[in-house]
Order: sequence, then C-alpha cells, then structure tokens
Amino acid sequence: MTDVIEAGGALPPLETSFPRSHKVYVEFEHGGHRLAVPKRRVHLEGDEPPLDLYDTTGPEAPSALEGLPKLREEWVRPREEQECVTQMHYARAGIITEEMAFVAVREGVEPELVREEIAEGRAILPANRCHPELEPMIIGSRFLVKINANIGNSALSSSVEEEVRKLRWATRWGADTVMDLSTGENIHATREHILRNAAVPIGTVPIYQCLEKVGGRIEELDIDIFLETLEEQCEQGVDYFTIHAGLLLSHVPLTEGRLTGIVSRGGSILAKWCLAHHRENFLYTHFDRILELVRRYDVSLSLGDGLRPGSIADANDEAQFAELEVLGELTRKAWKQDVQVMIEGPGHVPLHKIRENVERQVDVCQGAPFYTLGPLVTDIAPAYDHITSAIGAALIGSFGTAMLCYVTPKEHLGLPDAEDVKQGVIAYKIAAHAADLAKGHPEAQRWDDALSKARFEFRWEDQFNLSLDPETARSFHDATLPAEGAKVAHFCSMCGPHFCSMKITEDVRAYAREQGLTASEALEEGLREKSAEFRRAGGELYQG
Amino acid sequence: MTDVIEAGGALPPLETSFPRSHKVYVEFEHGGHRLAVPKRRVHLEGDEPPLDLYDTTGPEAPSALEGLPKLREEWVRPREEQECVTQMHYARAGIITEEMAFVAVREGVEPELVREEIAEGRAILPANRCHPELEPMIIGSRFLVKINANIGNSALSSSVEEEVRKLRWATRWGADTVMDLSTGENIHATREHILRNAAVPIGTVPIYQCLEKVGGRIEELDIDIFLETLEEQCEQGVDYFTIHAGLLLSHVPLTEGRLTGIVSRGGSILAKWCLAHHRENFLYTHFDRILELVRRYDVSLSLGDGLRPGSIADANDEAQFAELEVLGELTRKAWKQDVQVMIEGPGHVPLHKIRENVERQVDVCQGAPFYTLGPLVTDIAPAYDHITSAIGAALIGSFGTAMLCYVTPKEHLGLPDAEDVKQGVIAYKIAAHAADLAKGHPEAQRWDDALSKARFEFRWEDQFNLSLDPETARSFHDATLPAEGAKVAHFCSMCGPHFCSMKITEDVRAYAREQGLTASEALEEGLREKSAEFRRAGGELYQG
Repeated sequence: MTDVIEAGGALPPLETSFPRSHKVYVEFEHGGHRLAVPKRRVHLEGDEPPLDLYDTTGPEAPSALEGLPKLREEWVRPREEQECVTQMHYARAGIITEEMAFVAVREGVEPELVREEIAEGRAILPANRCHPELEPMIIGSRFLVKINANIGNSALSSSVEEEVRKLRWATRWGADTVMDLSTGENIHATREHILRNAAVPIGTVPIYQCLEKVGGRIEELDIDIFLETLEEQCEQGVDYFTIHAGLLLSHVPLTEGRLTGIVSRGGSILAKWCLAHHRENFLYTHFDRILELVRRYDVSLSLGDGLRPGSIADANDEAQFAELEVLGELTRKAWKQDVQVMIEGPGHVPLHKIRENVERQVDVCQGAPFYTLGPLVTDIAPAYDHITSAIGAALIGSFGTAMLCYVTPKEHLGLPDAEDVKQGVIAYKIAAHAADLAKGHPEAQRWDDALSKARFEFRWEDQFNLSLDPETARSFHDATLPAEGAKVAHFCSMCGPHFCSMKITEDVRAYAREQGLTASEALEEGLREKSAEFRRAGGELYQG
Repeated sequence: MTDVIEAGGALPPLETSFPRSHKVYVEFEHGGHRLAVPKRRVHLEGDEPPLDLYDTTGPEAPSALEGLPKLREEWVRPREEQECVTQMHYARAGIITEEMAFVAVREGVEPELVREEIAEGRAILPANRCHPELEPMIIGSRFLVKINANIGNSALSSSVEEEVRKLRWATRWGADTVMDLSTGENIHATREHILRNAAVPIGTVPIYQCLEKVGGRIEELDIDIFLETLEEQCEQGVDYFTIHAGLLLSHVPLTEGRLTGIVSRGGSILAKWCLAHHRENFLYTHFDRILELVRRYDVSLSLGDGLRPGSIADANDEAQFAELEVLGELTRKAWKQDVQVMIEGPGHVPLHKIRENVERQVDVCQGAPFYTLGPLVTDIAPAYDHITSAIGAALIGSFGTAMLCYVTPKEHLGLPDAEDVKQGVIAYKIAAHAADLAKGHPEAQRWDDALSKARFEFRWEDQFNLSLDPETARSFHDATLPAEGAKVAHFCSMCGPHFCSMKITEDVRAYAREQGLTASEALEEGLREKSAEFRRAGGELYQG
C-alpha cells in the first residue's frame, strides 16, 4: 500500500483503509448557511447500531490541482472589510460564528461552550479567512485531544506531489492539523498546493522561508523580511504560525551547561541572530507588528519553545522555564489584540517531570492551549521514537495538553516516508485517545466499548473495522488463521478452542441463561444438582 | 533478518545486532565460587569511555541440544539435602547466597540490599535449584524494572526449535524472564529444550498442561493432577509458576455485569471448574500443599489475576479488587513458608486508574513485587497493542511495578512471530527504561546521557550503537542518506546543513571558545565588537 504512495500513485480508496465505513454529514443551518459536519460511520454486524467517529479525512478533491471545495467562502465574505476577524474577537463579542457552530457539532458540545472557551483564550479555532477549504476544528483542554503531523520537503528530498499525498495520508489516519515544514526549493508552490488540498488547519514556521530568502545567512534576517514572509503566507491561507518570540538574548547563556544545547531549529536560528547582533530577538521586540498583521487574517500564533530540552538530561531546566515566562507575557499581549494563541512545549522529558510542564504552562500562560512535541520519555530508542514519545504524549495529554505533535519512527535519523507518517499518526491517535479516556470523554469511552463488545462476542469483522487500522488488524489475524471461517470462529489462534477464556466465559453465561438463572443466583441458592448438569453440558460444549 | 529465523536458520551473530559491542564479565569470588556477571560493553569513538549495559543475552550454547553451561551446578549442590532451599529462606537466615551476590553486581547495589529486600518479600530472585543454566536476576521495586516475554506453541502452530529460537531472540533484545505458555503437543519436550537453553528465569502456567492431561475437560481437573504436574515442572527447572489460587467461587458472579467477562485463560478455567462443581477453587483450598512442594525447589509463585479486566470498561472493578484481597492473604501464607511471591496485575486500564492498581497492590500484598500485563490504556488499536500497552507499562513501572509482561503487535489477533517478539520486547524495554529514569536510577540516566551526547556531537555510529536496536536505527538513517560520508556529517537529512539546530549551537559555542569567553561572559560584558566579529566568522562557517 505504502509502495503505491511512494511511487506517486493515487491513494488507495477510503474503503480499502476503512471497510464497512462511509462518510455521513450532520447537516444544519447557522447564520443563513447550510453546515455539514463530517463523521465516519462504521457499520456493524446484525442488530448492532453503527458507530459514528470524528472524521479528519476531508472531502475528495477532483484533482490535486483543482483542490478541495471552498466550504467557508460564504462564511468569510462578510468579514473581509474588517480590521480584526479572529474567532476570539467574535467570541468576545458574544457571536457564535459558523466555525464555532461547526466544531460544536463536531465535538458533541454546546456552541456556547465553544464560544466561551475561545473568548477566554483556553481554546483556539485556527481558521485563516483565506483558507476556505478548511473544515473547522478546535484545540483546547475541554475538547478532544488533537494531533498534528509534520510534513514538508527539505533541501535534500521530496516533491510537491509527494507532500500533498502525505497530507492526505496523514489526515486519513487521523491528523487534526498538519504543519508544512518545508525548507527546500519551491517552498511557496508546495505550500499553495498543500493549502488548496487541506481540510485541516495548516501550520508553518515562517522563519524557515525567511532564511531561504537570505541564503541561509542568519545574521541578515530582520523584521521586514519576516513580516513580508508572514503576509505572503497569510494571503495563502496558513492557519497558524510557530513564532519563536519568547527566546531572549539573556536566555542563551542558560543553555551553556546543557547536554544538548538548543535543539529547536527556530530557536537555534534566533539564538545565533541574537548573539551575532548582540541585540534582543527581533520577533520579541516587534511582536506588536506581528499581531497587527495576523489579526487581519485570523492566523493563530503557536508560540514556539525555542529552548525546549533535546534530551532527558536537559528537561525542565532554567532555560526552558525562563522562556516559558516570556511566552506568558506574549500570550497576554496577543489576547489584548484578540489574537488566538497556543503554547508549544517539549520535547524530551522523563515521566516524573511531565506534570510540572503542564502545571507551569497553565499557570504562566493562563490556560492558553498547550501543544507539545511528544515528549519522548527516554533518549535510547532512535527508530522507535514514535513509541518513546507516544508514552509521554499520552500522559501529558491526560494532564490537559490540547494538541500533541507527532513523532515518526524516523525522528533523529531521516525523513519520514508515507509509512512513517502513518505509524506516527497512529501512535499519536492512541496517545490522544488514551488521554481522552483518562479525561472521561463519553464519546471516547463509547468507541472502546464498541470494540471490546465486538471482541467479546467474537464479531471479528467488527473488531477489525472498529480499530484504528482495520487493514493491518485483519492481516495480523489472517497471518495465523487465514480461512474465512476463522473470522466467525468463537476462538482464535492465540489459545485455540480449548483455552479461549472468552469462549469459556460465554459457556458459563450460556449455562446460567439456560437454567433461567444468573450465575449469582446459581451460587446463592447453592444448587449442587445444577452444577452436575452443567458438568455434563460443559463436557459436550467442548467437543465442538 | 527475521526471515532467517522464521525459516529455522541460526540466529544472526550478536555482532550483527549490536555492532562494536562485546560481552565482558565482572568476575569475583563468593563462598568459594568464582562468579562472572555479564555486561555488554559498547565501544565508542575517540576518547569516549565505553558504556557497560545490563546484559540478558546469555552465553552461547554449542548447540540447542547440548544446552547452556551449568553455571549454578556447584552453588546448588550443598542445598540438595534441605527441606527448604528458597532464596527467601536464606535471606531471612542472614545468608547472602551466590545468586544474591551475583545480582548485586548485576544491579550495581550492595549485596545486603538484595538480601534485605528478598527477606522482606519486596523482591524475588526466581531460581529453581534444578535450573543451573540460569544467570540470576532480581525482581523488585528497588531494582531495575524487568520485562517478561511470552513464547510457547499452541495446538495450532509452531515447533520446539522455533520456541528455543524465540527464547534466544527475546533475550537478545532484552527480555529478563520468559514465560513458556505452550498448550499444544510436546509440551514437556518443548519446555525441556527451553530450560536447557535459558539463561533467564522461565515461568509457566501449569494449569495449561493439566488441562491437556484431562483432554480439555475442565471439570476433571483436581489437586492431584495439579501437584503431579507441578512436580514434573519443578524437576525440569521452571523458575516461577503462575497460579490462579485467588479466584474464589464467590467472585464469579461479580463478573456478570462486565463488558468482557473473564479474559484470563487460567481464570476462566478455574471459574468454570468452580461453577461446575459448585466448590471452592482447589488451588485455594490446597494452597499449603503447593507451598510445601515449591519450597523444596525454590520455585517462586506468581499469583495470577484470573479476574483481570479485559477492557477499559471493566478496569478496577469489584471482581478485580476482590481477587486482589485473596492474593494478599495467599502472599502472607507463602511468606510463612519462605516461598517467594509476586503478584500479577492487569490488563486493560485507562491512564487515570493506573495508580490505584499499584497503591492497592502494595497495600494489600505488603510490598510483594507487582508484575503487570501492560496495561493497555485503550482498546481501539488491535495490531498496535505493543504501543497501547507500553504506555500503561511505562506509567505503572514508574509507580513501582517491578516487572512488565510484554504485549506484541499480534495481541488479540494471532500468534507472534520472531519480528513480533522483537517489537514487543523493544517496546517494553522502552517502557521499563522510562520507568527507571523516572525512579531516578543513575545507571539508566547514564545510558540516555551517553546517547544524547553522541547525538549532539554528531557521532552517528555511536548514536546507532548505543540505541536499543542499532541495525534498525542505522537503516533508517541510511534510507535518506546512505553514503558513508553522511555518518560523519555535522547535519542530517531532517534539516539539511543550514537548518541543523545542533550544528548552529555548536557554532555558537565554538565562537565563544575562540574568543576565550563563555557565551554568558560575552553577554554580560556586552561586547558589541565581538558580536560583529562573530557575524563575519559565522558567515564563513556557513559556507562549509
């Protein structure tokens, strides 16, 4: 499957990845517009009701060149003349926008909750008015935990078409937003293609393009190049920018004793600029100009943690937390301008230091959504960092982190291909969903219950189809018991028919039912005769 | 590589899996015997000191038929005449056995700590006197977190030779103990081969063999068949038995309202037996006879959680905790007979309910080591349950769980092949190591620091060789940048030369050094001239 994608062919149809699923739309009116919120409906066997799942796959595009339908075109038209068009601006004015109404249905909550969380800055709804293809989504601790997938070509590899396919592939498996981290050539055209084919918010790190413009000479960067680049990207429809405005000149010496120095690309670029000029970070000193620009498009800011730890040894150190203080200050500035903000977090953090990251962030940034990269809970497993980091991501998500940036198996080693993207997204869907369960989300629990019920009732096809990756689940089953008959069998290859605990439990229950008794009544009444009958019946059951 | 193993060939040499590693032995005298504790020494580039790692790979066997050298033969001979030969017995008598001295060096702690933890029941050293091939190890919350890998043929699949290869393959990647869960034919011969080739403790679930003996008719099981089977396995050298003696007749009705009933094989067998006879679990009523037998061999007991939850919905329920109370009672009985005990735990548990499992277990079982299966933190990802469960395992390990039973990607779907075994072991090494870091283990931290230092210094070969799986790490790197030169390059394919944060940090530090200044002094003195110089120097650095 992955080979097809690598070779540049079309993606396999949705039905191949998700058999017996189809898209449904919850349709309703809001503000004179017809809204249609996508769900993936999984059909189950017999009388089992279908299960509707949150869906990130986006509409089909006739072709990558043509792009997706422009869903939001009519919603944003009336906003064009205005100086500030941010969702925060409308939320604070008591207005429930089309985007807010959309995400309320998508999340299964009241629109007023959405409005309030955005107004208070505890959630963001990243939706550039120039990105009409977007299906709105929300990032905040009161909502489902989201995941981001990074794509993007580098100087060394990959084409525009490949990046669009990676985008569609990532959202198929559940990516809620995608960051385009391209640093190579064709950076503008790649982004244009990605945006016109993206039903999810697209984020970028604009300093990368700025650095291309100055030929890699960091010291030649300045605020004018930066603002010009921002405007170019605002016009294209980028939904959020990572901006490393919190790294100050005085923080750089704090990294000196570190084992792994500065590992954020953006952070290292700005640290070098600061030292080269011996001046304060121009993103910090000109932050107001950035805000003035982005509020006209409603681009959200993702305040980058340029000093995030790059190893277990450097976690939760002075440099990291000094920068966080500045991010808190910038959050307040942004909110004054009605600009939506989230805060980026680490990185590499051992399990026992994860909670402190969330508590400090919530405190310092007054509840602005937290968006973390992993964190990896150990450094010793390159090639498995989707796992080392999914562990940290699940935990930090359960503590209230709103979005988790994925890590692929290639992290620290090479560029992810399509299979790596899928592996990264699935590991992070697991982490995000585990966090949702821990936070008591009722829809999350329903999904687990549906799958476990199917498992217990030996509905193998339902078990596959309800899983995050039906095709792989089925192929793993078939590797041991390929016959079609095995998929209706009341046992599996792990234990064989005599040893299947679920089969035995089923027999125990069937016996109780036959006798018109619950197992507990059978016990309470102490019916020794009945147990003799059961012994005989049980003997027969095991012949089958 | 995996293909070779599946096809029945020899395992690839250790040097293929771990380049630039070789085995070293820490040799010393104890009680008139020469002890040699294995370590894997990883050689690094240049002046970097080598790193010695805990090693589970075991000695090489001349052939599987011949088995491993009988390391403990001389140690156990003097114990033959005694009625009780358990490590707990000796520990309580103030004796530091050869096994205790061995694990003290292996763990880098004082022998007295080992003795005390065993005497108090907070750790076990599973070492049947009939398993002389064993390299002793210890399981307890004060020591490194251990992992277990399950192997074993079933009625439907696999051969004796394959199981021995899986054993050696599992310990190569870091399994600390291996459970042989065979249920098919040749159960005795398979176990014999496994034991004679095992340098790690081997555990079994004896009820499986008992059930084979009665042709699968659960109701025909009784204590005589059970004790006879135990004795057979004691004589062979099994180091620990999982025994489901805590599941009582009165617990069965508690499982009625569950979503997934009873999912432990042993648990379901005993529940059915109890109902069929309407009598109390014979393992519970005859527990003293079991203790009398195992103390003569020093087989440790792993008290099985027959009522562990099989889904998120059933976690931490009344049935589970009712059984735990009985396990506490059995622990006290075992300790009276100097029998070593650990306690098995779940299963499927959402993140927010994990801590309660450990706290209750420690309380009810008075600090006896906890040994958990995962737990899986969500049910929705069959085919990825090594990940869903590694998340739970890392967390429960950080709370004090002493051993983690692995889960492979095939869990719930099929029988693991060699590649699945490797994937499961590596996911669990990550979980166990993350827990060690969280518990502040200094040796664990040294490993991460060595790898991160190598990463920061662009010692690519060292980064690969220090990782859990060097071959895969290298192949992921080479997938993007295959040339040998790329492995000395001061950048990688992710960012390219202009964007490498670590490269930039290196430049920043080099500049400071050149100027005879630390970066912090440079800042404090406010040397604007120096920064102009740096600007010029930096420009040049980026030509390279």
